[in-house]
Amino acid sequence: MHVAKPLPSYLVQRYQGWRATAYSENRAWYKRLATEGQRPRAMIISCCDSRVHVTSIFGADQGEFFIHRNIANLVPPHSPDGLQHGTSATIEYAVTALKVAHIVVLGHSSCGGVKGCHDMCSGKAPELEQDSSFVGRWMDLLRGGYEKVQSLPEAEQVLALEHQAVLTSLDNLMTFPFVKDAVESGALSLHGLWHDIGEGSLFEYNAEHDRFSVI
Amino acid sequence: MHVAKPLPSYLVQRYQGWRATAYSENRAWYKRLATEGQRPRAMIISCCDSRVHVTSIFGADQGEFFIHRNIANLVPPHSPDGLQHGTSATIEYAVTALKVAHIVVLGHSSCGGVKGCHDMCSGKAPELEQDSSFVGRWMDLLRGGYEKVQSLPEAEQVLALEHQAVLTSLDNLMTFPFVKDAVESGALSLHGLWHDIGEGSLFEYNAEHDRFSVI
Amino acid sequence: MHVAKPLPSYLVQRYQGWRATAYSENRAWYKRLATEGQRPRAMIISCCDSRVHVTSIFGADQGEFFIHRNIANLVPPHSPDGLQHGTSATIEYAVTALKVAHIVVLGHSSCGGVKGCHDMCSGKAPELEQDSSFVGRWMDLLRGGYEKVQSLPEAEQVLALEHQAVLTSLDNLMTFPFVKDAVESGALSLHGLWHDIGEGSLFEYNAEHDRFSVI
Amino acid sequence: MHVAKPLPSYLVQRYQGWRATAYSENRAWYKRLATEGQRPRAMIISCCDSRVHVTSIFGADQGEFFIHRNIANLVPPHSPDGLQHGTSATIEYAVTALKVAHIVVLGHSSCGGVKGCHDMCSGKAPELEQDSSFVGRWMDLLRGGYEKVQSLPEAEQVLALEHQAVLTSLDNLMTFPFVKDAVESGALSLHGLWHDIGEGSLFEYNAEHDRFSVI
Repeated sequence: MHVAKPLPSYLVQRYQGWRATAYSENRAWYKRLATEGQRPRAMIISCCDSRVHVTSIFGADQGEFFIHRNIANLVPPHSPDGLQHGTSATIEYAVTALKVAHIVVLGHSSCGGVKGCHDMCSGKAPELEQDSSFVGRWMDLLRGGYEKVQSLPEAEQVLALEHQAVLTSLDNLMTFPFVKDAVESGALSLHGLWHDIGEGSLFEYNAEHDRFSVI
Repeated sequence: MHVAKPLPSYLVQRYQGWRATAYSENRAWYKRLATEGQRPRAMIISCCDSRVHVTSIFGADQGEFFIHRNIANLVPPHSPDGLQHGTSATIEYAVTALKVAHIVVLGHSSCGGVKGCHDMCSGKAPELEQDSSFVGRWMDLLRGGYEKVQSLPEAEQVLALEHQAVLTSLDNLMTFPFVKDAVESGALSLHGLWHDIGEGSLFEYNAEHDRFSVI
Repeated sequence: MHVAKPLPSYLVQRYQGWRATAYSENRAWYKRLATEGQRPRAMIISCCDSRVHVTSIFGADQGEFFIHRNIANLVPPHSPDGLQHGTSATIEYAVTALKVAHIVVLGHSSCGGVKGCHDMCSGKAPELEQDSSFVGRWMDLLRGGYEKVQSLPEAEQVLALEHQAVLTSLDNLMTFPFVKDAVESGALSLHGLWHDIGEGSLFEYNAEHDRFSVI
Repeated sequence: MHVAKPLPSYLVQRYQGWRATAYSENRAWYKRLATEGQRPRAMIISCCDSRVHVTSIFGADQGEFFIHRNIANLVPPHSPDGLQHGTSATIEYAVTALKVAHIVVLGHSSCGGVKGCHDMCSGKAPELEQDSSFVGRWMDLLRGGYEKVQSLPEAEQVLALEHQAVLTSLDNLMTFPFVKDAVESGALSLHGLWHDIGEGSLFEYNAEHDRFSVI
């Protein structure tokens, strides 16, 4: 026996709507996806934030994107220590098993995780420093980023740290040997994006000029 | 300098399509979400698999669901050891900061992660046993589930293990004190689902009869 | 040419879901309703508040309830002065054309309109006193109610005023000759309810004991 | 003492059903809505007609839509004369206090109010011309619409007048300074719909082609 309740009826209704329309119109395609397996072209690493709707933004259809979502779209560095690394597992699977051609790291504005990291690193959130804080320990990944932005004017720091979350992930991705090999052989490319929720705009990291510029 | 390439043009084009339509139609709503913050009603924990389209299935719109996606929709047990636990961080944030009313664990058919776990546990995939295998170490979370299904006829084991992935996550969720408290006070309910990709159907775990039944 | 935009796509999707399920399952009934006209059993007068879901609370199906919703579920007194009285028109139509058997006035907790009235009458919202404030002029209907509750302890006044909004409407309903006649002949009965949104509870006005009691 | 009877038992029973299911499944969400207040995304202006089930059509759940329902979904022109304008109060509250992103005017087939207006304007319903007729005075709002359709073949006039009811409301909405400002700044969009009850279909006003077209 496991603790669980029936699905709330508003979700049941919506599911039935989906089944009667989108599924029903594409039944053959779904059956093929089920039989032949997935063959996604890209992996997206984005935040869990309910306002970041990667499938909408990229007009995604079933079968197109392998999507990992965590707090603040962070990738930890390669660390083959035999412990559990959920994010590293998604990257390994995407690159070595699915052989995706692109990995897109998608950051966003007013990210609660990044804000928490900024509060923690600037001494405003001591509770996040505790061992028992999973959010705090996860945001440790961005401490190096904080060091890079702390000399900026206060008002610019959080946005800069949101950019750092994307850049940290890009850098950590390259510490995975299978990622580095695939990038160097041209089989895989990495992309860093930052999304402004209110403006609906998208900025991409431009390696040549080392800054984010609007698309 | 960080390694990154410009966004592939097919994604740029789709983003521009989204911006000209869905964003443009709802600009005021997105601005409000940006200013006032998110207030999602539910958290969804699903697989990264490109064929599982939770936002479609539940007709989700921006701001409705806090979504964590990892390999095989697994939740590890509560383990406040000061190490990085990305999934635990998402749960802590959803329950303690966002105070979501529902957590839905959504498993699915032909799950590559579950298949890998089955291969590993039945001795067919020794490479997954290595410390360097992130997928293997992540799927260790489901070893207890494998023990429960290994006495079933071979042909039924993988499906049963997909169900176990959902049930394991439900059980592990209850090991987090803040989840347990919220469930017991009635502030939070847990829901276990399994989705058949080809059939477009949804099964839910029924605690009373201790089995999955079709919705 | 009139100013209008296409329907947001999230509403289009949901409509298509409704059409493919609820409508499609009940097509014959909808066609009958269209051909034979409506024959609702009751009229409901409730607030516009998005959290008051009269069709859910009363399990309403198409064709059952004639529903008028305005700010704070208020009915003005009968005033046949040849001016526009939208609420009075709904009552006239319900009672004289549709001959409903019941009119239910449904108030609710944390009503923004009632709160505004309380602020206005207690001098905290001078802007609502202006001629140009439609909400203020509409809430004038509840000034008599405010006088009845102002001697109560501050903390009890707003709830008492929400009850007064229901009672004022019941009283004003009886100033319409066609309502009074129908009530006295037994063809029509009036009902006063107050709904607690957070508790999901319903209280009804009990004329015998002159108070609201939980159902 | 106020005139009221106990709630009919069929409604008590349904309320108890709702409380045991939908409320009970979503208790935490309703408590949050009660504590944090409503944040509806859209306002819907529809008819009181019992056959128009806006919450079903748009799969609405508690908290999503601010709903005003009156006879024939009519909005009067802006008229800040210090008199009671219940509909204007709902619009003011939705736009200035709740800052909704959309206003949807939803007309429908075989509308009794529109039919009454047609009868009145074409001389078939002299009783509606009297000062004492609230329905008649309310339907005066649509006299301008009648003038536009009276040259059409008789059989087409009523449907055309139902469309005019939607268009009149759209035009009158723009006479409210706060609506006009919000529309012009992009913070608000207006939408005109007409629903065929028997067919279960939805038509939307297309400003570019100045006509209603099926969705």
